[in-house]
Amino acid sequence: MADLKDDQVDRLVSEIHDYQITHGSLLKLVRLQEHGNPSVPCRPVSVSLLPTAFPGRLFDDALALQQSFNELYVRASNDHQWLESVLRPLLQYDEFVRVLWKIVQDTRKRGQAQPIVCGIFRSDYMVQKDSMSLKQVEMNTFSVAGACHAERAAKMHRHVQNALGIKHNGTLLESNNTSSLVESLALAHEHYEQATSHKVCVLMIVQGMNFNIADERPIEYGLVHKGIPCYRCDWYDVLSSTTLDRDGTLLFSHSFDGEHFEVSVVYYRAGYEYAEYEEDGIRIRLHLEQSRAIKCPDVLTHLMTLKIMQAALAKQGVVERYLPLDDASGVRGTFMPMQPLDGSEASQRLRQEAMAPTDGARYVVKPNLEGGGHNIFDEAVPQFLELLDREVSGGYTIMRMIEPPQDIQGLLNTGDRIYRGPVVSELGVLGTCLWRRGKEGVEILSNKAAGWTFKTKPTGVQEMNVVKGNGCFDCPLLT
Amino acid sequence: MADLKDDQVDRLVSEIHDYQITHGSLLKLVRLQEHGNPSVPCRPVSVSLLPTAFPGRLFDDALALQQSFNELYVRASNDHQWLESVLRPLLQYDEFVRVLWKIVQDTRKRGQAQPIVCGIFRSDYMVQKDSMSLKQVEMNTFSVAGACHAERAAKMHRHVQNALGIKHNGTLLESNNTSSLVESLALAHEHYEQATSHKVCVLMIVQGMNFNIADERPIEYGLVHKGIPCYRCDWYDVLSSTTLDRDGTLLFSHSFDGEHFEVSVVYYRAGYEYAEYEEDGIRIRLHLEQSRAIKCPDVLTHLMTLKIMQAALAKQGVVERYLPLDDASGVRGTFMPMQPLDGSEASQRLRQEAMAPTDGARYVVKPNLEGGGHNIFDEAVPQFLELLDREVSGGYTIMRMIEPPQDIQGLLNTGDRIYRGPVVSELGVLGTCLWRRGKEGVEILSNKAAGWTFKTKPTGVQEMNVVKGNGCFDCPLLT
Repeated sequence: MADLKDDQVDRLVSEIHDYQITHGSLLKLVRLQEHGNPSVPCRPVSVSLLPTAFPGRLFDDALALQQSFNELYVRASNDHQWLESVLRPLLQYDEFVRVLWKIVQDTRKRGQAQPIVCGIFRSDYMVQKDSMSLKQVEMNTFSVAGACHAERAAKMHRHVQNALGIKHNGTLLESNNTSSLVESLALAHEHYEQATSHKVCVLMIVQGMNFNIADERPIEYGLVHKGIPCYRCDWYDVLSSTTLDRDGTLLFSHSFDGEHFEVSVVYYRAGYEYAEYEEDGIRIRLHLEQSRAIKCPDVLTHLMTLKIMQAALAKQGVVERYLPLDDASGVRGTFMPMQPLDGSEASQRLRQEAMAPTDGARYVVKPNLEGGGHNIFDEAVPQFLELLDREVSGGYTIMRMIEPPQDIQGLLNTGDRIYRGPVVSELGVLGTCLWRRGKEGVEILSNKAAGWTFKTKPTGVQEMNVVKGNGCFDCPLLT
Repeated sequence: MADLKDDQVDRLVSEIHDYQITHGSLLKLVRLQEHGNPSVPCRPVSVSLLPTAFPGRLFDDALALQQSFNELYVRASNDHQWLESVLRPLLQYDEFVRVLWKIVQDTRKRGQAQPIVCGIFRSDYMVQKDSMSLKQVEMNTFSVAGACHAERAAKMHRHVQNALGIKHNGTLLESNNTSSLVESLALAHEHYEQATSHKVCVLMIVQGMNFNIADERPIEYGLVHKGIPCYRCDWYDVLSSTTLDRDGTLLFSHSFDGEHFEVSVVYYRAGYEYAEYEEDGIRIRLHLEQSRAIKCPDVLTHLMTLKIMQAALAKQGVVERYLPLDDASGVRGTFMPMQPLDGSEASQRLRQEAMAPTDGARYVVKPNLEGGGHNIFDEAVPQFLELLDREVSGGYTIMRMIEPPQDIQGLLNTGDRIYRGPVVSELGVLGTCLWRRGKEGVEILSNKAAGWTFKTKPTGVQEMNVVKGNGCFDCPLLT
């Protein structure tokens, strides 16, 4: 389809825009809303104009690995000693880690009010060209986004294929991300509901002025459609809208009619940025974590999303501590060489290589921050490492960059231009999990691969963040 | 609910916006699209924040009348002599009527290629306060809009009622407008399909740069979902995208892959503005009308949408010519005093009354134009009538204004403000019809009430055009 004419591209853009507008594939531009004006502008989220090729075998591999990754992160999050050993070096200079760790400790002090935890994860991969194998970019365990957008993008490509009679050299995938996520929250809800006779609801903790509601609301609507009340509560409204009973029951008071609900599941779609913990943020998080509500997920699982954790798990023997050998080897096969800059021998070796790369290898240095956009790439790496203060270096992770194939062609609407040329895609595999924490270890109650996301960016664009304008939601065309 | 606090209104606005954004209740702001920028802004269509009270008995009356109105307009459109007598006085100065009438004549000359006609109508009503009865505002027979928006607004109000726990003093209505319209087009399609062995499609003729795609696309998607191909064709692309066979078969060539379809149904969502008939417009319309495709609707039915027709049908004895007496009396009961300014005795009498209104009566003078926005109201009427050129006065209709109840309270988001206060609502009843024209009269193959639209504006705002910013889509709360 690389030979599309300009008027065909125009037709494609218009067909896709109309599908997106009528199917909620949009961003709500709350920050462009004029003061005092009760309307709100929005725009279609950036998407590929045609689906992008991806090896079918690697797609299947990625989905097959997800249960192992879920289990690995769940079990590791329960290993308090290991967790502490990884985080301790960061506590002196990483404010965010310090805050979260303090919440862990305060919660422990009061005793575990709710042993059951719910997790919605996403493991991101790119293809490594030399071996044509899957390599993990990162694992997200907190406030995972993109599931609803990805589902819409897949359905959009299927619609456009039929509407315009496009013949593809490959198989277009379907997606049921939203209902998978709804199922996992519903399962947690039912576990809680069994033990109470009060009216219960799922509470989705969200950021105010949120431009990404189209990735959150469908999950709420899905729960409501199943007869499970679900309400949104702004992060900064938590203390005024909820109360904590003496026994840890979290009560939510509906701001509209004042009706009270017992909260079954706290589903975090906020609280992932350090800025949210200034002011009242710490009290808010502690208030929620101390409650008897099932957290999706709890603060221990939240900590697992830090980049330092990915590097710590990659160290020799760690994965093998939490997974059966077969599963461990599959998981480990997706790891790129990676080390926290903690002064260890292995870390020094990788640092040396990055200072003077051989055989065309490229490196990236990642700070221990959420959300990307702070990474140091390629040529900038040696100078950065040279100047990096030894004191704070433990807050950074060095990773050999994944080198994706250069011959994949794509057609993208990035929102500010139509791009036709070589592209790089990132496959995210969604996982859901429900488990019971105990001193003897965790009991896993449910563990599933729950769908996928797929994003594509022009080759040469470093970061992949669709809502910030880098890259597009896309659908893999399996080859 | 008139005692909602400001923060509750804010909550309502946000809840509604998010529902609209995720359910395609939007306008596509194509004209605000920056040149060369492949994104497009959009915004939620204006809606009421709470449903507005409407008498349940009158709602039922309106739906019960629709089949009679369908039949009246269908039969009248087939009465060539009467149609000509009504239109003849306008031909000398109303360009649009002249153009459409010329197309009628040219099509007749070539012989009727397709006797079956499909109609999607909407009869609009307001409540007359003194008698608490339904009065017809107008009847729309061409390119009827609002069905999909109305359905979304109704579903939105149902969602919000549940999500926020709002208790209403009345019954919230449901709507299945879109599937009703899809059914009627599908029925026409099947009638055509029986007689051919070629691949057939419905062709939706649309305006380019259309901001109202969210009211059109769901009908297309609904047809496609039923396995009926449906394509959009811009009005000005008709001659390049379709060809007419010697036998009148209309062939549509798919601009994307060049596949050819025989057109079963031409569904007009364009061609209702005179400006569209400048340049190539006449040839476009003639091309479509001459074809063997079933028109939804044909040019004869199109003419019935002119305001002059409503006044002509209101004349003594006319309705009774086309309907059984019982049905005729129900229909006539909804007519306000109304006359074309054609110099007849009855017209002179009404003109006199409007020049010096007694008993608080108010009048409106309507030019014979589509789309509203050109009417002369109230105090402006006498001076306008005084100065109106006798030559062109036949192009105007004078109508006693409906006086709606003044005590209905509403809460609206008109897009530029939140309005709380007295409101006026307009109920539209959708009708669908399929019939066969013949010299002996028409044979009606299907005749249905197909749903409703409901719009509300602040009292004092004259015109009701939601997409132009006057009024809101709404849902009747039956009392």
